Amino acid sequence: MSRSKKARKTNTHVWTAAGTVTVDPGAPPPVMDVFAFDSEELVEKRLENIQWLQHHKDKYHVLWVNVDGLGDAGLISDIGRIFNLHKLALEDVVQVNQRPKVDIYDGYLFITLRMLYTHEGRVDTEQLSLFVGKNFLLTFQEGIPGDCLESIRERLRKVSTRLRSGSADFLAYSVIDAVVDGYFPFLEHLGERLETLENEVLLQPCKEVVRGIHDIKRDLLLIRRAVWPLREAINPLLREETPVITPETRVFLRDCYDHCIQVVDLVETYRELGSSLMDIYLSSLSNKMNEVMKVLTMITTIFVPLTFIAGVYGMNFNTEKSPLNMPELNAHYGYPICLLVMALIAAVELWFFYTRGWIFEKREKVHSHGGP
Amino acid sequence: MSRSKKARKTNTHVWTAAGTVTVDPGAPPPVMDVFAFDSEELVEKRLENIQWLQHHKDKYHVLWVNVDGLGDAGLISDIGRIFNLHKLALEDVVQVNQRPKVDIYDGYLFITLRMLYTHEGRVDTEQLSLFVGKNFLLTFQEGIPGDCLESIRERLRKVSTRLRSGSADFLAYSVIDAVVDGYFPFLEHLGERLETLENEVLLQPCKEVVRGIHDIKRDLLLIRRAVWPLREAINPLLREETPVITPETRVFLRDCYDHCIQVVDLVETYRELGSSLMDIYLSSLSNKMNEVMKVLTMITTIFVPLTFIAGVYGMNFNTEKSPLNMPELNAHYGYPICLLVMALIAAVELWFFYTRGWIFEKREKVHSHGGP
Amino acid sequence: MSRSKKARKTNTHVWTAAGTVTVDPGAPPPVMDVFAFDSEELVEKRLENIQWLQHHKDKYHVLWVNVDGLGDAGLISDIGRIFNLHKLALEDVVQVNQRPKVDIYDGYLFITLRMLYTHEGRVDTEQLSLFVGKNFLLTFQEGIPGDCLESIRERLRKVSTRLRSGSADFLAYSVIDAVVDGYFPFLEHLGERLETLENEVLLQPCKEVVRGIHDIKRDLLLIRRAVWPLREAINPLLREETPVITPETRVFLRDCYDHCIQVVDLVETYRELGSSLMDIYLSSLSNKMNEVMKVLTMITTIFVPLTFIAGVYGMNFNTEKSPLNMPELNAHYGYPICLLVMALIAAVELWFFYTRGWIFEKREKVHSHGGP
Amino acid sequence: MSRSKKARKTNTHVWTAAGTVTVDPGAPPPVMDVFAFDSEELVEKRLENIQWLQHHKDKYHVLWVNVDGLGDAGLISDIGRIFNLHKLALEDVVQVNQRPKVDIYDGYLFITLRMLYTHEGRVDTEQLSLFVGKNFLLTFQEGIPGDCLESIRERLRKVSTRLRSGSADFLAYSVIDAVVDGYFPFLEHLGERLETLENEVLLQPCKEVVRGIHDIKRDLLLIRRAVWPLREAINPLLREETPVITPETRVFLRDCYDHCIQVVDLVETYRELGSSLMDIYLSSLSNKMNEVMKVLTMITTIFVPLTFIAGVYGMNFNTEKSPLNMPELNAHYGYPICLLVMALIAAVELWFFYTRGWIFEKREKVHSHGGP
Amino acid sequence: MSRSKKARKTNTHVWTAAGTVTVDPGAPPPVMDVFAFDSEELVEKRLENIQWLQHHKDKYHVLWVNVDGLGDAGLISDIGRIFNLHKLALEDVVQVNQRPKVDIYDGYLFITLRMLYTHEGRVDTEQLSLFVGKNFLLTFQEGIPGDCLESIRERLRKVSTRLRSGSADFLAYSVIDAVVDGYFPFLEHLGERLETLENEVLLQPCKEVVRGIHDIKRDLLLIRRAVWPLREAINPLLREETPVITPETRVFLRDCYDHCIQVVDLVETYRELGSSLMDIYLSSLSNKMNEVMKVLTMITTIFVPLTFIAGVYGMNFNTEKSPLNMPELNAHYGYPICLLVMALIAAVELWFFYTRGWIFEKREKVHSHGGP
Repeated sequence: MSRSKKARKTNTHVWTAAGTVTVDPGAPPPVMDVFAFDSEELVEKRLENIQWLQHHKDKYHVLWVNVDGLGDAGLISDIGRIFNLHKLALEDVVQVNQRPKVDIYDGYLFITLRMLYTHEGRVDTEQLSLFVGKNFLLTFQEGIPGDCLESIRERLRKVSTRLRSGSADFLAYSVIDAVVDGYFPFLEHLGERLETLENEVLLQPCKEVVRGIHDIKRDLLLIRRAVWPLREAINPLLREETPVITPETRVFLRDCYDHCIQVVDLVETYRELGSSLMDIYLSSLSNKMNEVMKVLTMITTIFVPLTFIAGVYGMNFNTEKSPLNMPELNAHYGYPICLLVMALIAAVELWFFYTRGWIFEKREKVHSHGGP
Repeated sequence: MSRSKKARKTNTHVWTAAGTVTVDPGAPPPVMDVFAFDSEELVEKRLENIQWLQHHKDKYHVLWVNVDGLGDAGLISDIGRIFNLHKLALEDVVQVNQRPKVDIYDGYLFITLRMLYTHEGRVDTEQLSLFVGKNFLLTFQEGIPGDCLESIRERLRKVSTRLRSGSADFLAYSVIDAVVDGYFPFLEHLGERLETLENEVLLQPCKEVVRGIHDIKRDLLLIRRAVWPLREAINPLLREETPVITPETRVFLRDCYDHCIQVVDLVETYRELGSSLMDIYLSSLSNKMNEVMKVLTMITTIFVPLTFIAGVYGMNFNTEKSPLNMPELNAHYGYPICLLVMALIAAVELWFFYTRGWIFEKREKVHSHGGP
Repeated sequence: MSRSKKARKTNTHVWTAAGTVTVDPGAPPPVMDVFAFDSEELVEKRLENIQWLQHHKDKYHVLWVNVDGLGDAGLISDIGRIFNLHKLALEDVVQVNQRPKVDIYDGYLFITLRMLYTHEGRVDTEQLSLFVGKNFLLTFQEGIPGDCLESIRERLRKVSTRLRSGSADFLAYSVIDAVVDGYFPFLEHLGERLETLENEVLLQPCKEVVRGIHDIKRDLLLIRRAVWPLREAINPLLREETPVITPETRVFLRDCYDHCIQVVDLVETYRELGSSLMDIYLSSLSNKMNEVMKVLTMITTIFVPLTFIAGVYGMNFNTEKSPLNMPELNAHYGYPICLLVMALIAAVELWFFYTRGWIFEKREKVHSHGGP
Repeated sequence: MSRSKKARKTNTHVWTAAGTVTVDPGAPPPVMDVFAFDSEELVEKRLENIQWLQHHKDKYHVLWVNVDGLGDAGLISDIGRIFNLHKLALEDVVQVNQRPKVDIYDGYLFITLRMLYTHEGRVDTEQLSLFVGKNFLLTFQEGIPGDCLESIRERLRKVSTRLRSGSADFLAYSVIDAVVDGYFPFLEHLGERLETLENEVLLQPCKEVVRGIHDIKRDLLLIRRAVWPLREAINPLLREETPVITPETRVFLRDCYDHCIQVVDLVETYRELGSSLMDIYLSSLSNKMNEVMKVLTMITTIFVPLTFIAGVYGMNFNTEKSPLNMPELNAHYGYPICLLVMALIAAVELWFFYTRGWIFEKREKVHSHGGP
Repeated sequence: MSRSKKARKTNTHVWTAAGTVTVDPGAPPPVMDVFAFDSEELVEKRLENIQWLQHHKDKYHVLWVNVDGLGDAGLISDIGRIFNLHKLALEDVVQVNQRPKVDIYDGYLFITLRMLYTHEGRVDTEQLSLFVGKNFLLTFQEGIPGDCLESIRERLRKVSTRLRSGSADFLAYSVIDAVVDGYFPFLEHLGERLETLENEVLLQPCKEVVRGIHDIKRDLLLIRRAVWPLREAINPLLREETPVITPETRVFLRDCYDHCIQVVDLVETYRELGSSLMDIYLSSLSNKMNEVMKVLTMITTIFVPLTFIAGVYGMNFNTEKSPLNMPELNAHYGYPICLLVMALIAAVELWFFYTRGWIFEKREKVHSHGGP
């Protein structure tokens, strides 16, 4: 499924009546995984149906249900009913083009995030929706294979981690943090591509550079659209009192907020570097053109007058009919003098080019760009 | 009626005395449609005069009057009198170049929106004004055929929808939501045009690209002018206490607000992509020019010296008058050596071009732009 | 008086001691017009001296004194004394390069506005200062013939208008509104010029376009400088309690504020369109250059090699001295073969240009830019 | 002392320990002038040492000490001790690269301003530091000859001025106002230079324009750096209660604040005009190039084919060896027909250029840019 | 270790579980230096292990521990335990790509700064983390040789300095101030490089300029990323009550805040100057091209027609076969007239170039850019 097609399909959801859960017909069927734990016990299982959920909903310290794939409207509605979730939030879960945001409902938070993944050599985003309650965390993914939560699962399986003894909001924080930290490898990769392009542009600029810069710009726009609203959304959680987020977790969210700003910072820096590279590339094109034109101009300017002189003495005026007709042709030193004149003209022109700095440019380089 | 003419006409209203309802002489005559309903009953009828309104004004749970066409000043003033509306608001209804806004009056809200439609291949906007009271909703359209409210009418005709059991403010929300969601297909279309242009620019740039980018830019400006103030206008409704908007509807308006931001986001992203495409196009022009100039320079540089040599030996210096006059012409190997020299010069120049990378450029491509 | 000179002169006031009324020696002598009215009576007269003012100051419901021309320091000081105005405000009246602003003094408001007018084909601004008290309105104009207040005078002369029964603050609002609405025809005119330039740039770009865009930009800067601070200045009047502005008038001022924002919006839109046009113009220059260069390159590339061949066979190597010397010249088919070779070379080159798309470019156009 | 050197020297102060007064070794020795006055009496004298200060400190209604030159650390420390000033403020006095700011200390305000002056044809700034107490004003200048306070001194010498009867804070306001008003002549001068450049760019663009625009840009950056922080710094004085600034003076400071904004406005306007001029200049370069290239292309395109034909008939194929060898040379009408063909080719090409609009461009001008 | 590699390595920390101290394997081993002092006594020693710390932690008025090198996770954890520091803060210490920030914890502040240093001719940053408690200051550096704290150490060693008698927060302020003041030499250096580039661009622009501007831009981005967040972070310390920062130190921090703004100001100014230089460079490229093209066009335009004429009279039409065939060749004045015609053509063309201003451009220079 091509990128543009996907965008079109998922967008069609937006203009249905608000508050109804209508799934994308092409969405993959959901897979449900449950982690139910307290500091001593851990139950990890794949659910086939939601009966289990209904019965065990309040039996654990923390219950994490991860739904991967949004192809089953009934299932999602059922989960909504079990955990008493607002219809609008459920609708946002299946509309996979949401902006990252945090909505505060009675008794739970609804958080939308965007995870990055690579699709046909381009960066793309997958929606991750979180419902954070007192003792549960529900996560919904679009169903694209792979996610950035594996390290969390690993840590949950160990007994003594902070995650196991923490509450649902700490688990939620860990998920958000994993998503945000998942941006860094992509940014690094972009940074490396920028550095490669920089070298190329400065040493041997070629056409592909433009495409490279454009691709980087687009990827940066995508990442910015994923992280910028997230930053704004986390911000109120740091300040206001919310029933779900405990003060202990808030300290950690501040850390997560710092990482968001760091991502935004890097994106902006890369964008500016990209623009700067584009400028350099354009100036290198002009430089190349100048160089080409100089060669052309020098060759033309040197040889055209010479060719003219040769042309003059190639004229067929009849020297026999009149002594005024090209007496040079019959002169004893006619030819050598003619060649000498030609050589002189060429020499003068070369000297002219030299003074203009067109050949053997002598310039002082910008030596030191070191520190103070 | 051409676009610019229309703009001029509608603008003329602005500088009449504030608070007077003076309709545009070219505005179409109004058509009034009424939906009066509660959760059990629905009356849907086209009104010929406003007598009916006067009598049934307070008899229904919700009364929705849709006026399509603003050509009758008397009618609009009469409606204003029946529902006790402020003159300034009525004036804004007939001045069809309003910025989207929300004005809070005693007992009702006055909301101005802009719907998008396509006019001669260009995106244009139609003004939609709403008066939202406790039990009534008045909507005024400019009278351009077609609107984005059909889905709402469909849902009203069904008995069991939330819309039927909801109050006037929920209906108003549904109208606003329909308008905002109506922006997405246009944005999608713009996104597709951008993608087409992107392919064209990267593969085979041509003149039409500039016009295409300019058109997209103008359409984006129009959409931004429609949605940006709307976002600002909805914002206070989410926070402040207004007598008309119930807390239940407020949750839904928050969703609508999110969609507005999403539109703004997309508009900004598309604008940046458009600028980036323009940059690429300009660089492709320079590249093309470079290519053309290289061909010119190579041809000139190779043949002009050769032509000069040919010109020299085409001179008519009399070899009989002096042994110094072009003895080459009478030499046994004169012609072959001359040709050889020419071939040598050409070879040297080709080698020069090769070292400069003008022919058979060998460059390393920017291979991987995939993820990390 | 040229524009730049005017700027210089008026500026010189700024660095006199604050609080002194020193008029510009070139300022026209003032003309005083009075409208004194309540809902029944209207006195309209031209004042020769200020005695009348002193005696009738408090005798009318509303007293409007319009002073056109700032050439008489004594008169202005006298008016200031009669109405008890602050020296700094009077000083601002005669310094005709004020930014629009609203200053709140005890018992009255001091408002500075800028009216637009056309001066030698350029947009220029005239300062309009207002003092709004409980029962008086003083307006000071620079004295440039014509203003945008004629419609207000007309409405005052009619008995039954809201203006006649309103208080001084409503009259002041009407003046402000008339000034702001007076911006729209100028913006419209700029919009039309932009549209004309757009057509020109897309169809047949010429040098004058640059000048046109620059002129529009400058006019937009001027309008923005006139309306942007006004918007900021009106804003506090909408919210804070001021003794002069009544709540009824405040609703109307909100409307006026909306118009200011609309002007700012249009100015920004036009600026962006102007920049976009400049981009298109520059790209059209590059395109033109490319076209010219292609013609040059094709002609040169085709004929230079042919001319070289002709040059070769124009050499005078003596065929009688050696059989190696240009035996082609004596060959039976020498000339026809030579012509054939030339034709072949030309054909190959034309084919080369065709494959590069330099002649008969076949491209797919960007067809539909219509809606979704 | 060159500009860059000066910058370096003064900067070195910044990284000494905070709170120590270390003067620049190259700073000129200080000259102290005292104005001590109340509404009746005025003492104006040049101080040789600070004994006088110590004794007369509290004996006058207002005491203004102006120190011109910062070359004496001891003196400045002594003054600080006499008036009980904070070390950090004194340190800022001698570090002459401060941003304009207002610091509120116990019992006095510390204000830093930057005065403009012209240095080797460039605008430069001189630091002016003010200490404003209940009954004293201390001003410190860098010691560059001339300042913008002469008009204040003149007014002080007159008995009846507001300045003489005012308190120290009014005197301080007058100094600030004089500094801000001192920016206008510089801005005017920049405005005139811009207008000159504008005419030049539109009529006959030359290389110097670039330098001119760059110089203006740099000067504007300097002025903006001087006035922007000042605006921010004055702002709190207008609102908050400070013990030193009396409400009467606050009204005047508001006026001063307005002037600051006016300066900022002008700077921004000029910057945008400068950018616009640069765009015009660049487009004029492209236009010129286009024009040059057209001439080149036309000449080449017309003469190269003709020269080729001449070259063909200059070939030496032996007409006697074969009837196929250039029979045209022996034809009766050979030469005239050849010339005719050449003329025809030239005519066709000229016609081609004419249709392309390369010669005798007929275009409609952008006539009216007047108002509506 | 190359710059890009370093960036990659340090980033890898970010996506470990929050709150764990995992050091970079390539980080240098730590070196611990202690300054323990009150106004009378000073203990300065290099610690081998942390036993000493544990015992002497609360025995001094102020205890400053500087850890240079982050290669020992255990040590850092131990210090954290001794001083009771939060795990998240310790984690931030070893992740050396933190944004500057101030985090307020119970009983201490955690501050992250970035020091500048030069690495292979490029500006780079080193992280400096501070823990400020009632009576201790812990500083952690990455371990890059050299820092900007030497002057603080010097002052500590002297008995009578304010630093010795001050508390831990004043010491912390001094460190922050030293870091911020350490930016100025780098900015100065950049300013000088800009001035050099400016001269080069205006006098004799060459290719290296582009690279120079790009390098400056990148350095400025780096400095801005170091100082911008610091400014934001210090701001709340100036206003809010924090238990660690005393009011006396707050006055000094305000000074430090001013310096931050000064750095930001300079960075912005330099960025604008850099952009302006790039514009000038690009326009100089166009100018150069224009100049080159003029030479080419003039030479071509003058000689191509002349060469054509020479070519015509080089044709071999047989004058004997027909009197119409080139009778000029046999005319008595044929050759001189031909040369005369050629000279005339050349003269006309030169005159044409002169009128177009291509040779001997007479222009009025932009003379005065001095002040008013």
